[in-house]
Amino acid sequence: MKIEESFRVSLLVDFYKNLLTQKQRKIITDFIDNNISISELAQIYNTSRQAINDLIKRTIKVLEGYEEKLNLLHKFEMIREKVKKSLEILDSKETNSSNEIKKELNSVLEIM
Amino acid sequence: MKIEESFRVSLLVDFYKNLLTQKQRKIITDFIDNNISISELAQIYNTSRQAINDLIKRTIKVLEGYEEKLNLLHKFEMIREKVKKSLEILDSKETNSSNEIKKELNSVLEIM
Repeated sequence: MKIEESFRVSLLVDFYKNLLTQKQRKIITDFIDNNISISELAQIYNTSRQAINDLIKRTIKVLEGYEEKLNLLHKFEMIREKVKKSLEILDSKETNSSNEIKKELNSVLEIM
Repeated sequence: MKIEESFRVSLLVDFYKNLLTQKQRKIITDFIDNNISISELAQIYNTSRQAINDLIKRTIKVLEGYEEKLNLLHKFEMIREKVKKSLEILDSKETNSSNEIKKELNSVLEIM
């Protein structure tokens, strides 16, 4: 898996993990976030590499299906981008209110 | 249904409507957003008021289930609140950069 795809799947897991089954969630997290290889996962779960590979592919399909329907990861990314832009503007020009606004906008970023 | 509950369900429908079945989506939208009564819906769908009532209750339970798992409506509401607060601060103190920031933050509100 390419690094960009891995990063996207990691974000999708963050968003939709509670809609996965326990097994899907555990294995995709081990694979994506904990960098456990398919071979190692096959050993841990006492199954074939093919079975782990299939489960990971199915799980990614489920995650992409939720994003296709809800589009929430995309919306959150747009929000994050715009808020970051706002913060950049604030950084570039000193104003009296800038600290207040920064506090607000930083707390927005913490939510996401 | 109380007005506050109706408002909340309307927001949940906005968020998660694509995870509902076509029938659930159609009837909950007619009921909540188009203000069609249960009696009228029973006539339209040639069924009992009880059946419509049950479907609406089940649909709300499904929506609340998604929100319980994903918590995204809650997060978006927090974001909206904080962004509005930022805009209030900007309104209260004139600065050179305020127009730029307002444009950014207003576009954040449009996404949501």
